[in-house]
Amino acid sequence: MIRADQFIVIAGPCAVETYETTLACAKGVQRAGATLFRAGAYKPRTNPKSFQGLGEEGLEILEAVRRETGLRIVTEVMETRLVERVAASADVLQIGTRNMSNFALLKEVGKTRHPVILKRGMAATLDEFLQAAEYILQEGNENVILCERGIRTFETYTRNTLDLSAVPALKELSSLPVIVDPSHGTGRRSLVPPMALAGIAAGADGLLVEVHPDPDNSWTSDGKQSLDLPGFERLMADAKRLLPLFGKSLGTLEPLNATSAV
Amino acid sequence: MIRADQFIVIAGPCAVETYETTLACAKGVQRAGATLFRAGAYKPRTNPKSFQGLGEEGLEILEAVRRETGLRIVTEVMETRLVERVAASADVLQIGTRNMSNFALLKEVGKTRHPVILKRGMAATLDEFLQAAEYILQEGNENVILCERGIRTFETYTRNTLDLSAVPALKELSSLPVIVDPSHGTGRRSLVPPMALAGIAAGADGLLVEVHPDPDNSWTSDGKQSLDLPGFERLMADAKRLLPLFGKSLGTLEPLNATSAV
Amino acid sequence: MIRADQFIVIAGPCAVETYETTLACAKGVQRAGATLFRAGAYKPRTNPKSFQGLGEEGLEILEAVRRETGLRIVTEVMETRLVERVAASADVLQIGTRNMSNFALLKEVGKTRHPVILKRGMAATLDEFLQAAEYILQEGNENVILCERGIRTFETYTRNTLDLSAVPALKELSSLPVIVDPSHGTGRRSLVPPMALAGIAAGADGLLVEVHPDPDNSWTSDGKQSLDLPGFERLMADAKRLLPLFGKSLGTLEPLNATSAV
Amino acid sequence: MIRADQFIVIAGPCAVETYETTLACAKGVQRAGATLFRAGAYKPRTNPKSFQGLGEEGLEILEAVRRETGLRIVTEVMETRLVERVAASADVLQIGTRNMSNFALLKEVGKTRHPVILKRGMAATLDEFLQAAEYILQEGNENVILCERGIRTFETYTRNTLDLSAVPALKELSSLPVIVDPSHGTGRRSLVPPMALAGIAAGADGLLVEVHPDPDNSWTSDGKQSLDLPGFERLMADAKRLLPLFGKSLGTLEPLNATSAV
Repeated sequence: MIRADQFIVIAGPCAVETYETTLACAKGVQRAGATLFRAGAYKPRTNPKSFQGLGEEGLEILEAVRRETGLRIVTEVMETRLVERVAASADVLQIGTRNMSNFALLKEVGKTRHPVILKRGMAATLDEFLQAAEYILQEGNENVILCERGIRTFETYTRNTLDLSAVPALKELSSLPVIVDPSHGTGRRSLVPPMALAGIAAGADGLLVEVHPDPDNSWTSDGKQSLDLPGFERLMADAKRLLPLFGKSLGTLEPLNATSAV
Repeated sequence: MIRADQFIVIAGPCAVETYETTLACAKGVQRAGATLFRAGAYKPRTNPKSFQGLGEEGLEILEAVRRETGLRIVTEVMETRLVERVAASADVLQIGTRNMSNFALLKEVGKTRHPVILKRGMAATLDEFLQAAEYILQEGNENVILCERGIRTFETYTRNTLDLSAVPALKELSSLPVIVDPSHGTGRRSLVPPMALAGIAAGADGLLVEVHPDPDNSWTSDGKQSLDLPGFERLMADAKRLLPLFGKSLGTLEPLNATSAV
Repeated sequence: MIRADQFIVIAGPCAVETYETTLACAKGVQRAGATLFRAGAYKPRTNPKSFQGLGEEGLEILEAVRRETGLRIVTEVMETRLVERVAASADVLQIGTRNMSNFALLKEVGKTRHPVILKRGMAATLDEFLQAAEYILQEGNENVILCERGIRTFETYTRNTLDLSAVPALKELSSLPVIVDPSHGTGRRSLVPPMALAGIAAGADGLLVEVHPDPDNSWTSDGKQSLDLPGFERLMADAKRLLPLFGKSLGTLEPLNATSAV
Repeated sequence: MIRADQFIVIAGPCAVETYETTLACAKGVQRAGATLFRAGAYKPRTNPKSFQGLGEEGLEILEAVRRETGLRIVTEVMETRLVERVAASADVLQIGTRNMSNFALLKEVGKTRHPVILKRGMAATLDEFLQAAEYILQEGNENVILCERGIRTFETYTRNTLDLSAVPALKELSSLPVIVDPSHGTGRRSLVPPMALAGIAAGADGLLVEVHPDPDNSWTSDGKQSLDLPGFERLMADAKRLLPLFGKSLGTLEPLNATSAV
């Protein structure tokens, strides 16, 4: 559902915060060229006492942002009982790294016809990653987008180790589109632009980038890996220069077929 | 809920197969000294085409085995919508390694009063492991048992690398009981007995051991890490000699308090 | 010693084999644009029974290749007692991944004035990598080039996991040039070109690429990660198109200062 | 060279410091039951500015300690040119984790007839570990002792992850003795005793334990993983109770054959 000559850029903050900051972020990333907006209403947090997302209220803010901007919405769903509810508000469902092997959840999103961004588990082999995708495909949903978001290694300077070789490798092993998340992949704002461009050069079909209008005042700890809007604009300018060399230009998700719900 | 002078041994096959083999296994491990029986009715399988467990039918077999043997039943629950159903048949709920960060599921088992065996994620730090436990505790269920089952490393001779230092480390960081699963931790039958004994010496409160009456004809791929009944008997004989040196003897799960449902 | 607007490409076979194949390879990579030629006379092999390199004879072949082509020679040195001998034949010394923490060897190459390519250890953090470089610098040799060549993870599809985020990270932490070895980094021929281009986009100062005129008949096991000459030519054509976007063009190692022995 | 019914305990400080503290430590560990004394005269340090060991002076202190106590001396050798010199002062040569794949050094110690303790590389597979041992064996020195000392993983609570499954695994794959270093394996004093006992239960032939009379004033950073003398005495008391269950008692290195230089 991503044409071979197109490249998608999904951007937005870690979490939905207020309507105003979320809208400001959406308008900013749209202006810079992003075609999908991502923000979390339900947040998987290691610490049970951390902010867990606005939930229902977050979904409503996302719907309002879509009405206002026309941007399609990507958001994470974390449990089977909420798939229907989240799918009612979002255009694209995201399965986070911690749920890559939550097979009940994979089957449940497989029953929708929404595109699903499936993030690689922190310690998942490529083979396991593709078999997780198979759980979704097997239910009849062929709109699966694989997302490399870094794996866990001994290195501590970066939050994870972004495995860009996964991009061409997954393309050898499967025909699914592959996007890259350099924000979680590195955990450091300064490393996001070079790794985003490296992702393009490695053959990715898109990027998922954290952008926050005021990263240092983000409600979650992900501020330090978020670009601000000027930083995202510079990245998009570089990306637009780079993409033609790889026969691509900025595009969006295509409906997979005429009857698709997207 | 495991007394400081006691040690629990949970044993059984990877999956519930037929009533006959399951009962035979239960009687065998009971005779050797196991006080809890574990078998999976719902199996998390990497490959969606692999045997996924008998489900409902498996739970019924487990109930029949309990009636017949008196052994308490440990079994895995993989999704929120099944927690109530599994809890009706099982005495102890197991959260598998792939679901250590399935926070919705952790909260759901936290609402029961069943003891919960929480397995460490394949790439979870001890800090993340303890915070996952906190999701259960925070719902009011204090019956959490931590299970070290091996982490993922570059080594390929073993299926995982059993991190026995996690045992004393977790005991420094928390007051929860810690058990060891040398079967998944090594993936090789021959390594299970030495690593089980090493787990005792490292200070564990119990073991979770895969035992199958006929491992080479197991319905799942875990046969190669399962002990057969004579092998389990030898391990138990060694364990019984070793435990007194650590001030322990074979015991069982104690009710945490008078109002506990266990 | 690599100018900010230049990019070096070092290419050649894993090991020096015969004079004829070595010369053919050197002429081929030179024609495609490589400015340095690399081949091993001394090979660090996991298995003591594997081919360990031609040694002295290999160094003589490399000298003959330099006379014939004018290409500067890069080759690995594995022990202190051979540093002087290897430095007499080679223009650039390579310290392999297994010797990154062989401090006696680091000090010894630090006493020469040859540029030294220091490969990251398989499990070395960036901090350890830079401290290893410090062992060389401290002896007065400032010509150190850092080489990211993949780290060891649980992934088995690739030989190592090429950590391209090391490129911008090392540039944040140090002013030393950083090159990328996509051949050892991936272990698969098909992944070398995309990862080489990704390395450029990540900001690398150069590439180290295995090229063999007839990879399937290589004397070492590295054939499966070697490009053949047409494959290398295609990669170079792509690289030449990509470099200007990053303000770079193909160049070579500059003498660090007028008194340098290089 | 370690009898099947014996178990060796090698103890001592990270580095040789003064004659007085080294002798005090040696007498202390001897009194507690250690039969070999280990201290480093040459220290492999990540940071080139850290204390690198007393060198020659350290060797002389070790010789004096041997004369005074009768304890055999284990010490690390880090480069080929020093093998002969170190072998003149030491009874047993140690190859550190950073040099496991320093093949020139392995061959050089292979030419001596001293027992060699070969530490597993931080990211070495068991197969690579055994092949490194083969480099020594191939030169005619059959006195190789394998030492598991922890591998590098994502866990940060411990310095390394002590892979005790390596003990029974190496014994399946080879007939060489295997010892365990719980000090480097954990990096935390409090975890050393339980992991030392777990090593015995896993089937190890010996222990290598860091002991310092005053760990908080150690000259190196390893103080925090060193036992003090009372802590080592308690460990030895526990070990002596545990060993008989595994058919072992405290012993020493046996000469491999009558013509051995040891």
